[in-house]
Formats: sequence, C-alpha cells, structure tokens
Amino acid sequence: MPSLVQLITVDCPKPSLQDNTGDIDRLKKNVTGKCGGSLVVPYGAMVRVAKSCRQADFAGFAVVNDCKSHFELVDFLATKPAILPAVALDLGTTHLEASLLDLCTGDVVAQATIANGQIEYGTDILSRIHFAATAGGLQILQQAVVAGINTLFQELSQQVGISPADIRALAVSGNTTMVHFLLQADPATLCREPYIPLINSPDICHGAELGLAMHGWAPVWIMPSVGSYLGGDLISGILASGLDERPGTAMLIDVGTNAEVVLGNRDWLMACAGAAGPALEGGIARMGMRAGPGAIDKVRIEPATGRLSYETLGGGRPKGLCGSGIIDLVAGLYLARMIDVRGRLQKRYAGARFIEGPDGPAFLVVPAAEGAHGQPVIFAQVDLDAMMRSKAAMYSILTTLMAQVGLDFKELEQIFVAGSFGKHIDPRQAITLGMLPDLPLEVFKPIGNSSLAGAEMVLRHRELRVRCQALPAKITYLELNVNQEFMIRFSGCRFIPHTDPSLFPSVPVFSE
Amino acid sequence: MPSLVQLITVDCPKPSLQDNTGDIDRLKKNVTGKCGGSLVVPYGAMVRVAKSCRQADFAGFAVVNDCKSHFELVDFLATKPAILPAVALDLGTTHLEASLLDLCTGDVVAQATIANGQIEYGTDILSRIHFAATAGGLQILQQAVVAGINTLFQELSQQVGISPADIRALAVSGNTTMVHFLLQADPATLCREPYIPLINSPDICHGAELGLAMHGWAPVWIMPSVGSYLGGDLISGILASGLDERPGTAMLIDVGTNAEVVLGNRDWLMACAGAAGPALEGGIARMGMRAGPGAIDKVRIEPATGRLSYETLGGGRPKGLCGSGIIDLVAGLYLARMIDVRGRLQKRYAGARFIEGPDGPAFLVVPAAEGAHGQPVIFAQVDLDAMMRSKAAMYSILTTLMAQVGLDFKELEQIFVAGSFGKHIDPRQAITLGMLPDLPLEVFKPIGNSSLAGAEMVLRHRELRVRCQALPAKITYLELNVNQEFMIRFSGCRFIPHTDPSLFPSVPVFSE
Repeated sequence: MPSLVQLITVDCPKPSLQDNTGDIDRLKKNVTGKCGGSLVVPYGAMVRVAKSCRQADFAGFAVVNDCKSHFELVDFLATKPAILPAVALDLGTTHLEASLLDLCTGDVVAQATIANGQIEYGTDILSRIHFAATAGGLQILQQAVVAGINTLFQELSQQVGISPADIRALAVSGNTTMVHFLLQADPATLCREPYIPLINSPDICHGAELGLAMHGWAPVWIMPSVGSYLGGDLISGILASGLDERPGTAMLIDVGTNAEVVLGNRDWLMACAGAAGPALEGGIARMGMRAGPGAIDKVRIEPATGRLSYETLGGGRPKGLCGSGIIDLVAGLYLARMIDVRGRLQKRYAGARFIEGPDGPAFLVVPAAEGAHGQPVIFAQVDLDAMMRSKAAMYSILTTLMAQVGLDFKELEQIFVAGSFGKHIDPRQAITLGMLPDLPLEVFKPIGNSSLAGAEMVLRHRELRVRCQALPAKITYLELNVNQEFMIRFSGCRFIPHTDPSLFPSVPVFSE
Repeated sequence: MPSLVQLITVDCPKPSLQDNTGDIDRLKKNVTGKCGGSLVVPYGAMVRVAKSCRQADFAGFAVVNDCKSHFELVDFLATKPAILPAVALDLGTTHLEASLLDLCTGDVVAQATIANGQIEYGTDILSRIHFAATAGGLQILQQAVVAGINTLFQELSQQVGISPADIRALAVSGNTTMVHFLLQADPATLCREPYIPLINSPDICHGAELGLAMHGWAPVWIMPSVGSYLGGDLISGILASGLDERPGTAMLIDVGTNAEVVLGNRDWLMACAGAAGPALEGGIARMGMRAGPGAIDKVRIEPATGRLSYETLGGGRPKGLCGSGIIDLVAGLYLARMIDVRGRLQKRYAGARFIEGPDGPAFLVVPAAEGAHGQPVIFAQVDLDAMMRSKAAMYSILTTLMAQVGLDFKELEQIFVAGSFGKHIDPRQAITLGMLPDLPLEVFKPIGNSSLAGAEMVLRHRELRVRCQALPAKITYLELNVNQEFMIRFSGCRFIPHTDPSLFPSVPVFSE
C-alpha cells in the first residue's frame, strides 16, 4: 500500500566489465521489484538522477511517484532525509487549509490555513466563473490560487524546518470549480445546463507544471469529482466517513458554499447538492463569519427571562457569528418566541433588543460597548430570511434524497456531519430549527474537515487512491435543479420547525 | 499490435443532464477500450484536447501514444488526416538517414539523408566524447544533431506536403554514444573501463523535450543498447534479420564505425564489437568515401594483363573509393600479385601504377585526367596497411566469437551483412582477402540499412517494441578489449588470406 510518493532503499550491484548495465537501467532494475509495478524514469529527471546515483556509488534512496498506471522514479538521494514531506490541501472557495505529512510515518507534522486570494475576483463561485470568462481572467484566478498554495508551502515548511522545494507530493481536495481554476481549465460549461465539467478525474500532473513552489517532479493528485456540483471534497468526505464501506445505510452532510449530501452504504450511493450553505458562513449574514477568534459560536437565550449569553472562540470580544452561533441564536430566538414560526422578529418578545438597523429591523446580539472595537453584533431580519431559506433548503434536500430511495430517517444508522458546520453546531438546535431531522442526538457524528482528511488519506495509501477513483462511477446523482418534488418540499420547510410539526415531536410549537 | 502512435476513431455519447461525465473523462471512456491499456491525458495536453473534442461535438480522431506501461492521449482531430506521419531515423556517426512512414498503412512515403553536423566537433566518436567534456560541449553536440534531425523533418515533410509539426512520432536507432548525445546525457563513462552507459534503454520522451521541430507531444522511441559498444543500431539489425527468432544459428555482421557482430538463434545470442570499420569508410583511407555519386564501388584487375577497370556510383567521374571499391581493389591487387600476402605493394607487378604519392608509396587507381575535377584517385601503402588491420580485425572477431560457442563457420545457415558494406561488397572479394569466411556465396545475405529498417519496424508494431526491449538482456556480450585469444588470432590474420591458407581453400596462394 505505497504512499503517493515513496522513498525506496537502493543498493545496486556496482558496475564492472562483467556487469555493464547502464546507470539508469541499473537503478531501475534495483527499484522495480520494490515499488510493485512498471517503472519509468522521465526524460527531464534522467540525467540528474543518473548523476546523483553514480556520485552516491549506486546506493541511497530513490524517490518514486505512484502515477496509477505506472511508477515514476524522479530523484535519488544519497542519504535518508529526516522526513518525506507531502501536503494535503482542502481547496475551499473561501479558505485553503493544508497539512504537511511525513509520508515515512504517515503523521501530520504541520498545519496551516489561508484565505483564498481569488475572493478579490469574486466572493462566490459563480462570480469567479464569470471573471474567468474575461480576458486573462482564468489565468489570474489560477495564479491567485497557486500563490495561496505557495504561501501555505512556505508556512508549513517553516514549521518543520524544510524548504518548500523539499515537498514531494500534493493531494488536492476541492469542489469541481476550484479544481478547474487550479488546472486553468475553462469552467464555462460547469454552470450551464447540462452542467458538464471539462474534467472530473484528472491524471497525475507535476508541481512545476502548475507553477507550484514545491519539488518540480512532485506528483499532484487531484481528488476526482462526480460532476459540476459534487466535487472531490465530497469524495474525500465519503472516504473519511467510510460511508461506502458500511453494511448499514448512513448519510453524509457537508455544508460549505453548497450543501452536499450523500446517502448510502457499501452497495449503493446517492448524492445531491444544493445552495443551503451561504447563510451559515460569511457572505449572506452581515455579521456572519468563519469559525475563528472572536466568532460567537454558542448562544443561549433563557425563554422565561429573555436573558442572552454567548461564548466566543478564543474567549475574546465578539466580532460576529459563525455558523453554529447563528443556529444557536435562531433556535434560541424561536424558543423565546422572539421570532415566530416564519422566522419574523417579534418586537413584543424581543423588547429592547429589537432595533432598527441599517438594513431594517434587526436583533441586537451584542451591544456596541461589549463588541470588539466597540462595534455591536446585530442579526437583521434579512439575515433571518436567508437563514430560513438555508434551513429549508437543507431539510428539503435531505427529505428528497430519502424519498428517492424510499427510506425513513429512522433507518439511518449514522449521519456524518462534515466541516466546521459539523464540528461546531449543536444538533439539538439544528433540530429545533427543523434543519436536521428529529433523531436521537447520538445519530449525528461530526467528522471535522473531511475534505482535508480525505486528501491526507490518499497521500498515505494506494488502495484509498484506487477506491477514490472508483467512487464517482458508483454514485447516482440526483439533480435538484429540475426536481419538482424538491420545490414542493422546500415550501413546506419554510416554517420552524416545519409545516408538519409532527415530523419534529421534540420541538415545542407555539400558537400565534 | 498498435503502432507507436495510433489514430483512434472517437464517437462519444453526447453530454446531457443524464450523462454529466466531464469532457476529458468522456473521451477517455470512449478511447480506453480501443487502445488496449491504461490511458492517460497528460496535463499539458488536457485543455487543448478538451477544447478540440467539444468543438467537434465529441466525434473525431484521438491521437494516442504507446508509452509501454500505458497509453497517452495527446491530441484530438475533428477530421481524419490524409496520413499519420512518423519518422524512423538511423542516427549514424557520419550520417543521419531517415524515412517518413504513414502509420495508417505502415508504408514508407519519403526518405532523406544528411551528414551528421557533429563532424565539425570531431570526426570520430572518441573525439566527440572528448569535446562533450569541454564547457558547453555536450549541449553543442546535442543541438547539432537536433538541427540535423530538424532539417530531415523539413525535407521529408516537403516531399509529402505536410508541416514538420504534423510528424507524430520518431523512432531512433543509433550507437550508444550517438544516443547519449541526442539525450544530452554525459558520455564520459562510455569510453573508460568498465565502459558503462548512462542509459541503455531510455523511456519514451517527447519531441518538445529534445527541441525537435515535430509535434511537441510526439513520442520519441529510442532503440535500446546492450552496452557502450553494442548500440541500438545492432538491436535493429537483429530485429530486421530475425536472427533472434530462427531455429538455426546465423550471424549478423554490421560494419559502420565499428564492426558489430551477433551470433545466435532463437535460444541464445552472443555479440561482440571491434574497431574493424574505419578503413572501409571515410576517415582512414585518404581516398575512401561513403557510397555515393562518384564513388568507385567496383574494381576489376585482370591478373594476366594488369588491366584495371572500374565503375562509379551514378556513372560519373571518380572521386574516391567506397568500402566495396576498396575491397575489390585490394582483392584484385592481390590476385594480380601487385601486393604480397602481407599487403605490401609490389612495384614489379604494379608497374606504372606504382607511384610515390604525398604519403609515400601508392597505387594509382585513376589518373588525374580521368578523375573528377582533374584529381587522381590513389590508394597509398598506409591505406593498405589500415585495410589489412581492418580485415584482420574483422576475421579475428568472427573466429573468436565462433570459438567461444564451439561452432564452425560451416554450421551457420546464414550470414546477414548489414549496411552499405553488406549492400555493395562482393563477398567473393572479401573472402579472397580473408575478411569473411570461405563459405558458399549464398550464405551471405545483404540486408541493407537494418538500423533504419529496425526503427521503421518498431514504429509499426508494439510486439516488435516489446521484443526489442527484451533483446539486450538476452545477449551475452563478449568483451574483446581484454580478450587474449583475440589478440593471438589478430596476428594470424594479418596475411592474405590468412597465416593458415587451408582455412580459405577457394583462394589461390602465391609463393613469394
């Protein structure tokens, strides 16, 4: 089960009149049996490899890439390096998150995150796709993301005391559009019916080909996509959750810019995607922000007194609300009757916290005096409306998917919740809002950044790379854009918890 | 049995909401089954291929390279081209000889030859190896040979009305040193004990990587070498003669800069190489020249009268002697007793043709009045001496090889004689000199430029490429440089026909 790049110990018989094999042939002969497949020395690496190998008197360590159909010997080291560095990357629309692994041990030895520099050219995916269509736009977007990755390489390298040029492999997990930007592949057909990517499953390329400041011959593995709306990040989630290997049926929910959901088990997999996420991240909610220092991640409102308490990540003064804070807040507002079943602010319950903000009626979460930099944290009615649409979309997606296969939520063994959404939200509050199904809390299992975890996994093991490659063909994609049933369900979900409260027996219902 | 590059007919199902496979994935799915192996679309070709494929509405012709361990889809054509052009190249020390094939039919459709521009930096291999060791020398030699190949591409393309960029593949057959120069691989270890090449069997590289003015993604196949002194040109010869597939034992003699000889059958192969060639080409003999217009290729001397007649290639005025002319001349001189058994000019028999030339005693082959540009053609004693060494080396090589396996010449079914040596010489005359064994003339079979023929063969058929790659490991190399027996034999061969005339019953022996 070789890693994406391997260090193979070499000890060749020495050249002699009786053994006049060429230097490269000698090296290949020694390494071929050890890497487990057909071995190639690419022309561009050949002369350098031969020289290093001869200088080391034909004993040392070969650096061998796994290129799926064959192996590729790209470097020769006289001495064993302290670590064999490889980077796993979650290529997100808003952030790039990376970890540096030592492939000799498989351990993560450094981590780093950076904002996606493409935001300058469009906050959301669609506006970036439009920007890519302008002259030179695609190239600018590619260079922006490459610059971001190179910065991450620099940071990660500093943490472990290596040079970025020592990084020997990269595994990338991202949505289909982000992968197109990275590959400088035209994304124009991604957002137009019938939504066809230029590429779902790219072959291995090399660091230098993409302009990455790592070893030029480092293989770049890209997690395959299922289609325009189901990206490699979701394949990573399936891999990290093990959904595709379980005998019992389970569900995976990944909320990022889109909500992507997979349902299934080791025999079948069905997936769909929809715009359910933005209200929970930055972008739509004015005070929304990514989970990070100063973000309110927990809110409690005592129904009886209306007293509000909160916690911030890092414990400092509040700057805004992250996804879990928003869900806590809105669930608390509902239980304190400060919003009604339609999500409309109720002045008579909200009292002094009901204010007229710059965008109309709003709820004052944190007064200016308490906020970071003397700024208040407010949550406006328009944010509530967006939140209501998001939660409705989410539950509609889940029910449409379940209905498609004729299963009831009760039949799910587990619901894996990926990303910071899964990490920070309280499923109890999400159930109160009617966003997640009313199931015992132990059914919900947060799995963290599974996009990054999947990228780490494929760096480590060939069988996982093979498994990933086979996954897209196993997944049935349910297209919601043209799904009439979904639209009907969506309307039914625009109440708290639902038009049909019997679906949420654990949630109190108030008469108007 | 695919050719090195194939044109594969593509007709993909059209994209739809029900079939949202990516463009490249769609193409690969359609082509994979047709090429017979694992298929890769290299990153550098991906975007262009996707665009062409979509513009042609997913129907057309894929250009697919055979990279041994996998196939590589590098281009997409909307319409079928008139031909699929590929070039076979005999990469010789003095000349580059090429043919252009249409791989759709396998036919040779154009041919061209050019002098090797490296001659400027050294007439023989050894002086070029020394030049390569000077600053920038190796690069200069690489560029010189690439420039030559590009000129051939230009000529061949003009002959068939295509652009050099349309050439889709190149197969190269040459000696080990020439291949090192082409690959810009340091040849320093080739000529120093224990004579180890940097590479014997290079993997496929691409036209652009070598700076060749052909299609950038054209695969460049290099015929593998056995070692420093047994090059890919010899592997070509084995392939072209079929030596390695015959039940009966046969021999292959290839005389170029070196004499390379292979003995064997389908069960075993033994080879050796030695410096037996130069006297037969340009270089050593002052009036020696390559077989071409103006070269004397046939000489007859009537023993009784001493009357000399000759023929030139092309029928024009004589400029010099090519290899077969030299052998004819020396055999004729011997039979007319104008030289003795040691190859020394005998004034009493040579008469007026015995002259004092600029390099000492010489034989006047053609008087100035008859020669091209009013120049005489003379053959000096020093040329005769070189010729004697060459013929002695040749016969010594052959007998050493035979003795090594305990076989007698009579047991050979066939002796294949490659190159212009085989094409032009009269085996009868070579036997008279004691250069070739005294066997019935039908045993000797000229096979022409088998280096070029081998390159053509591997362009056409995968099984021949596989066979070539396996050949070097099957060949036992007999090193003559350290062979005591060879040196003893060599001394015995420095007579015409031999110290032991009983080995050549068909050759008259004159008493002094």
